[in-house]
Amino acid sequence: MSAHPVAAVTSPSTWAFIEDKFRPHAKEMLAKLVDFVQNEVVPAERVYLAQIPSDPATRWQTIPPILEELKAKARKLGLWNMFLSKTHYPDVGVDLTNLEYAVMAEVMGRTGALASMATNCAAPDTGNMEVFARYGTPTQKKAWLVDLMAGKTRSSFAMTERFVASSDATNIKTSIRKEGNDIVINGHKWWISGAGDPRCAVHLVMGKSDPNNPDRYQQQSIVIVPANTPGVKVIRPMTVFGYDDAPEGHCEVIYENVRVPESNLIAGWGRGFEVIQGRLGPGRIHHCMRSIGLAQRALDIMIERITDPTRKTFGKHLYEHGTIVQNVALSRAEIESARLLVLSAAHQIDKARAKGAMKEIGIAKFVVPSMALGVVDRAMQSFGAEGLSQDTPLAYFYSGLRQLRYADGPDEVHIQQIGRKEIGRAPELKKLSEAAAQKEKQLFAEAGLKARL
Amino acid sequence: MSAHPVAAVTSPSTWAFIEDKFRPHAKEMLAKLVDFVQNEVVPAERVYLAQIPSDPATRWQTIPPILEELKAKARKLGLWNMFLSKTHYPDVGVDLTNLEYAVMAEVMGRTGALASMATNCAAPDTGNMEVFARYGTPTQKKAWLVDLMAGKTRSSFAMTERFVASSDATNIKTSIRKEGNDIVINGHKWWISGAGDPRCAVHLVMGKSDPNNPDRYQQQSIVIVPANTPGVKVIRPMTVFGYDDAPEGHCEVIYENVRVPESNLIAGWGRGFEVIQGRLGPGRIHHCMRSIGLAQRALDIMIERITDPTRKTFGKHLYEHGTIVQNVALSRAEIESARLLVLSAAHQIDKARAKGAMKEIGIAKFVVPSMALGVVDRAMQSFGAEGLSQDTPLAYFYSGLRQLRYADGPDEVHIQQIGRKEIGRAPELKKLSEAAAQKEKQLFAEAGLKARL
Amino acid sequence: MSAHPVAAVTSPSTWAFIEDKFRPHAKEMLAKLVDFVQNEVVPAERVYLAQIPSDPATRWQTIPPILEELKAKARKLGLWNMFLSKTHYPDVGVDLTNLEYAVMAEVMGRTGALASMATNCAAPDTGNMEVFARYGTPTQKKAWLVDLMAGKTRSSFAMTERFVASSDATNIKTSIRKEGNDIVINGHKWWISGAGDPRCAVHLVMGKSDPNNPDRYQQQSIVIVPANTPGVKVIRPMTVFGYDDAPEGHCEVIYENVRVPESNLIAGWGRGFEVIQGRLGPGRIHHCMRSIGLAQRALDIMIERITDPTRKTFGKHLYEHGTIVQNVALSRAEIESARLLVLSAAHQIDKARAKGAMKEIGIAKFVVPSMALGVVDRAMQSFGAEGLSQDTPLAYFYSGLRQLRYADGPDEVHIQQIGRKEIGRAPELKKLSEAAAQKEKQLFAEAGLKARL
Amino acid sequence: MSAHPVAAVTSPSTWAFIEDKFRPHAKEMLAKLVDFVQNEVVPAERVYLAQIPSDPATRWQTIPPILEELKAKARKLGLWNMFLSKTHYPDVGVDLTNLEYAVMAEVMGRTGALASMATNCAAPDTGNMEVFARYGTPTQKKAWLVDLMAGKTRSSFAMTERFVASSDATNIKTSIRKEGNDIVINGHKWWISGAGDPRCAVHLVMGKSDPNNPDRYQQQSIVIVPANTPGVKVIRPMTVFGYDDAPEGHCEVIYENVRVPESNLIAGWGRGFEVIQGRLGPGRIHHCMRSIGLAQRALDIMIERITDPTRKTFGKHLYEHGTIVQNVALSRAEIESARLLVLSAAHQIDKARAKGAMKEIGIAKFVVPSMALGVVDRAMQSFGAEGLSQDTPLAYFYSGLRQLRYADGPDEVHIQQIGRKEIGRAPELKKLSEAAAQKEKQLFAEAGLKARL
Repeated sequence: MSAHPVAAVTSPSTWAFIEDKFRPHAKEMLAKLVDFVQNEVVPAERVYLAQIPSDPATRWQTIPPILEELKAKARKLGLWNMFLSKTHYPDVGVDLTNLEYAVMAEVMGRTGALASMATNCAAPDTGNMEVFARYGTPTQKKAWLVDLMAGKTRSSFAMTERFVASSDATNIKTSIRKEGNDIVINGHKWWISGAGDPRCAVHLVMGKSDPNNPDRYQQQSIVIVPANTPGVKVIRPMTVFGYDDAPEGHCEVIYENVRVPESNLIAGWGRGFEVIQGRLGPGRIHHCMRSIGLAQRALDIMIERITDPTRKTFGKHLYEHGTIVQNVALSRAEIESARLLVLSAAHQIDKARAKGAMKEIGIAKFVVPSMALGVVDRAMQSFGAEGLSQDTPLAYFYSGLRQLRYADGPDEVHIQQIGRKEIGRAPELKKLSEAAAQKEKQLFAEAGLKARL
Repeated sequence: MSAHPVAAVTSPSTWAFIEDKFRPHAKEMLAKLVDFVQNEVVPAERVYLAQIPSDPATRWQTIPPILEELKAKARKLGLWNMFLSKTHYPDVGVDLTNLEYAVMAEVMGRTGALASMATNCAAPDTGNMEVFARYGTPTQKKAWLVDLMAGKTRSSFAMTERFVASSDATNIKTSIRKEGNDIVINGHKWWISGAGDPRCAVHLVMGKSDPNNPDRYQQQSIVIVPANTPGVKVIRPMTVFGYDDAPEGHCEVIYENVRVPESNLIAGWGRGFEVIQGRLGPGRIHHCMRSIGLAQRALDIMIERITDPTRKTFGKHLYEHGTIVQNVALSRAEIESARLLVLSAAHQIDKARAKGAMKEIGIAKFVVPSMALGVVDRAMQSFGAEGLSQDTPLAYFYSGLRQLRYADGPDEVHIQQIGRKEIGRAPELKKLSEAAAQKEKQLFAEAGLKARL
Repeated sequence: MSAHPVAAVTSPSTWAFIEDKFRPHAKEMLAKLVDFVQNEVVPAERVYLAQIPSDPATRWQTIPPILEELKAKARKLGLWNMFLSKTHYPDVGVDLTNLEYAVMAEVMGRTGALASMATNCAAPDTGNMEVFARYGTPTQKKAWLVDLMAGKTRSSFAMTERFVASSDATNIKTSIRKEGNDIVINGHKWWISGAGDPRCAVHLVMGKSDPNNPDRYQQQSIVIVPANTPGVKVIRPMTVFGYDDAPEGHCEVIYENVRVPESNLIAGWGRGFEVIQGRLGPGRIHHCMRSIGLAQRALDIMIERITDPTRKTFGKHLYEHGTIVQNVALSRAEIESARLLVLSAAHQIDKARAKGAMKEIGIAKFVVPSMALGVVDRAMQSFGAEGLSQDTPLAYFYSGLRQLRYADGPDEVHIQQIGRKEIGRAPELKKLSEAAAQKEKQLFAEAGLKARL
Repeated sequence: MSAHPVAAVTSPSTWAFIEDKFRPHAKEMLAKLVDFVQNEVVPAERVYLAQIPSDPATRWQTIPPILEELKAKARKLGLWNMFLSKTHYPDVGVDLTNLEYAVMAEVMGRTGALASMATNCAAPDTGNMEVFARYGTPTQKKAWLVDLMAGKTRSSFAMTERFVASSDATNIKTSIRKEGNDIVINGHKWWISGAGDPRCAVHLVMGKSDPNNPDRYQQQSIVIVPANTPGVKVIRPMTVFGYDDAPEGHCEVIYENVRVPESNLIAGWGRGFEVIQGRLGPGRIHHCMRSIGLAQRALDIMIERITDPTRKTFGKHLYEHGTIVQNVALSRAEIESARLLVLSAAHQIDKARAKGAMKEIGIAKFVVPSMALGVVDRAMQSFGAEGLSQDTPLAYFYSGLRQLRYADGPDEVHIQQIGRKEIGRAPELKKLSEAAAQKEKQLFAEAGLKARL
């Protein structure tokens, strides 16, 4: 069996199944990452939380120092910006396939977002850096991409709007208007992740620049807005369950007569939809793999709990009661299936780009969060009240996963899309059936039997 | 169809099914309650939340004034202490059957805990008042029960312990020791609801007074501890999915050499288990009915959302997409079934006391919270991100319901108990089968057929 | 606790919950029925099956003699035609409410269809007798209803068509044409229950008599066709899983130039839809109650199996392994909920007729068969291979229940209808919300707080 | 994308994921097999059924001629005995890895058992041939293996016993007794697959030869019993959901003083358990892959149905109603996950033999049949009544899959075993946690924070 350390924190048999698709340098990087996550990031989790003040006055002004220490270590180890693929971004990218990075995303996911932040691989910066790398002018890159890639600043992507059914992005109302050499923005957004963070240097704001364009997918543009531009008003953090995710936050933001030079336009007028499309495919897979890492971690925590000799009740270990063994078995099976599903989708992206992997990505998108929620819920149940509290990471894991069931399109939408795609196989299936029916008729005749109606 | 206003906020057909079990005065009280909850409490929900400061310095010192206003109104309307049954507490109780009160509990549950607090029917005070009413000496009653029943003070029940597998209550470690005419208490509790509240006047503390007693159910006693007794240290509030439930809180509390007079003993030495048993049955049914009210409210909120014309996407109302209609239908069916189940259990308590309704109560206990969680989850999903935030009550509802899956015994324990009870029907079933087999043999013979092996 | 014998074969607490709605004569009849089913029908089940030949030559010509013996006993006991309500059919009906009959249907359902056949309460005769009783002319009644009610003959209802998407009944293609004083019928039906039975005397055939009528619900008529009319061709029995349900069968039937006098028309030209509507509501409830009886029987059988000392494995009873106790508890809870749901729907029919109980009936229709299938599946699993075989009734129960998930409208259709009905509460809910919002605004103002956006 | 024809009948992305593990000759064989199954076996399915008489007198005496024709074609194409791995049986085996054969098993599974029978890869012969190949003496091989491998005869494996809880194989009661140079067998078995078949030449009978051996796993032996030996009494076929599976059958068989020479002993006295262990691992994977083929076929059939323009209701295709699109999407996702899970298990067997893949095999064993049942059930539902009848293969598929939930150990047993194995990771997890706790303590100290309790 493989001796690679990733086997111990994921699945030995799945690793054996995909190991031959990993190149030596990726294996080496993965080994370093496993060590870093287990021995540096996991032990830092509670320190990080303890360094965030509860006082509302300072809570949103403080970056936990331990994070900066982790970042320094990660960068030194070469565990930095791994999300940015050399294939698509030859000048700044890292030489990893989607499959190779997918496994790394699972390993990082074991700590929620902390390992991703420590390695500069955290959303929404990842997608924003991709946008700058792909569409940015040299000036734009110099102004924003360099510091983002160095982990010196952070960023937001402002799309979702309050009072708007924004899962249909053509509903967007924010106005982006040219005025001389300037662009003027007015809009009411919310759920803008990272906008509360003192390090947040820049927002990418999507809005309607051409609302009357007959092509609904050409009405939108995206503009770079420095966070300190006058008129950018961060109203409040939205909570998810009772968490505010300080200091990043998911904020309500009003853009009131925000004025920036036209050179802040991304890609060109009317290309907003095209730009966001590029953000989607692989990013969804990374979300899924992180969720799997989180589910695996929850199962590991659960196993420790149910075998803890100090938690015996009525003379038995917890795992000897009721249906707990079953819960462990089902959780293991579900994690294992989901992991293979997502890895196969990642591989498909490597073979056929995101466009050729839409079905696989869509399936992963609706399968994984629900699966992971189920696993975390069972783990919480094994802890009783403690499982819902600040003394385990489980309830917070749950809250993060629950968002993924609507973020970037609710489950229901993806299920419909995949169902329709699958139904699209009908003509091909019909052709096969008709050929078989032809042959069947002949066989009945040869057998001297009357074919059924 | 019945014109009683309760039909509109519960189920017209279920109301028709049980209406003949309601006495006139109970119907009248119920009608007042529906009006009070819908027209006073629901509109006050957000005011209540807005009156709780976010600053940690004052957050735990403030009672939202709107609550006191609601309490005054409720008391004036005679909607007060309805939980305390005249059957069991003839001198202080209210003349309602369990079934009658069950429907009221659903109506109050629509607002989470707010209506219960407004009518002085909120846990843990309800159980504590029952303990005082049943076991209290005249002095104890005068000292604590009078103010509790008047809604002037609140109280805690301290059972669950940190570092102890407390779902087996015989594991309790807190020491209760007689010392002269005093009782000295040392222990480390947590999840002590209400202990953070400035109104909390008294704790009932359960511990081991006779740890070597061969009968494990005689080792425990319960002692009255005034909240301001030296040595009572409220350490921190535990959070549930990020919520701290200020100002009541679910607190970690250390009792360090807490000394009270022996007259503070409840019921007598070694009677702790007996006392807590009495707290269980009907209280579980009330929890269930409140959960059903909450689920019904979530469904109502969901229906408003999915029919909101401003939320159209791709030219259709939300309910015209995917599986939302199905979700509504399933939610309705599940709420309706669960409500009938709990009402039938409440009726069974009225017929045969809690002891004769253990199976029905146990079934309700493990069916209802999971059902309600599913309904609330679907409602949250129909709101997208907003459903998880502070802008709807849904995520907070979810967090409250999730606790009920382990509070007062985890689902798994109740499922095992009910399963065993049901399996206990085996001898009776075997007798019926043997009689049938006898008769079958005779019929085969009469028919001239060889009976099968 | 109630001493009525029905408590032992259903649920003591549910019986206690509804007992006061039973009139004395209904209670007495119910007691007789319980005795008859348990002591006469259950012991006869295997005799009945053994009396059906396996030889295809005689299999469809034989009525098991034991059935006629049971019928004689039932009739003598007054357990006869209980399905026909005196309320709707004052001259021939039995004085039972829907609720009273519902409980009887559960008791009969314990034996699948055998007890229903023994008491002349079996489909499709029940619906057909209702049609004759309600719409039949005196001549028609004399010719067909008298013998049906005496249990001397049986009957079929021919609606479903081959090669037609018949869950939309307006798709029906069978032609019903007036020709002089005759009616001529041509059509290709299948799934015609009872058409294979040697006792089947008459078919009620639905078809299009006015295919161009602009009102799609006026195009159909129903005609009485004696089973031995020339041109009535019973092609083959359809199987359900591997069961052919001999001797009744669910048959493919071709009507080829079938000619009957115009006096065989039911109700009048173009009234086909109206007639079938009347067959639906209460009949669905009876199906549901029989399914509950069957599920309860499966659970009873399962409990006997898992406590059988001869089935021990690895030194333990079956019920001491894995998740079997849980399966028993869940089954009990699901049966109990579903029973209450259907009884409440039956009561609603009594209060508001079928029309006023459409929501309750629809919920029962989609909840109960799936529930019962789950219970039977668990019971099968506890028997291993034997549970799927001819040595227990379970697999046959399963097959019967599985049909109910599409018979009389697939689950999906009912779920959609109920969902839409429930969503129809939106305007009423909106009104309540707006009133609350008004009041909330006032409360915020009174509290000196700025209301949220 | 791969142009291999297997992609069209399985999953293009999964095929791309594993293609590099297929050797050229295996790819070629697979392509032939896909062609053979789709163009020869599928068209022959109904002919095969039509050639089995319904008359009980001849039903068990007839081998459908079309099967022999298919066998001749398959053998000519080299599609023969692919189940027998060259790795384990170098002299007679076929050069395929478990992974390579697994994909072939899926393709064959699309037709239920027919393609497996046509290629001489059908149970129980497969396991029996493995036993002969591994343990048989030259004489035994010559007498039985040669004809079995040539597809001239068939065979049975007699283990399960009536009146015995045989999922614990140590409960077996059949007596195997040495008497001079003979072996005398007495026992009552059932569910003996293939024993009804006129081609069945030989039974392998397991029983107790040393019931008092203190090692419960050394009490059993296996003996070769020619099917025509006096005392071998085939009593009746057991049915599964009404199907008798003629002409093979799953029979009740009594062995009454059956006498064979001692040279008919397999492997040696007391080695019965060892022999059956060898039959288990890979065979389970093959069952799983066949089930996946069957589920995929059911989904394909469903897609054809729901897009059939002649099945429109209320003006819409079936797939445009309710939740059918969702059902398709979920089915696709479940099949895809399960396929990857089983392929990964097959690969694990190739890497680490069955012993090193027990967890992966066990997971596949309990995941796949339930998954496939769900898919087939949805497909049945889309057909209405027809889906349960003889006019689609779906109900028969369902019946076959349902058996797999207990065959070779019920789901519950496998779930417990896998759960326990997974819990066995606890010590390793504890070690990791303790290391992390150590480091965390240090980090808190460095940060100048008080570590939490």
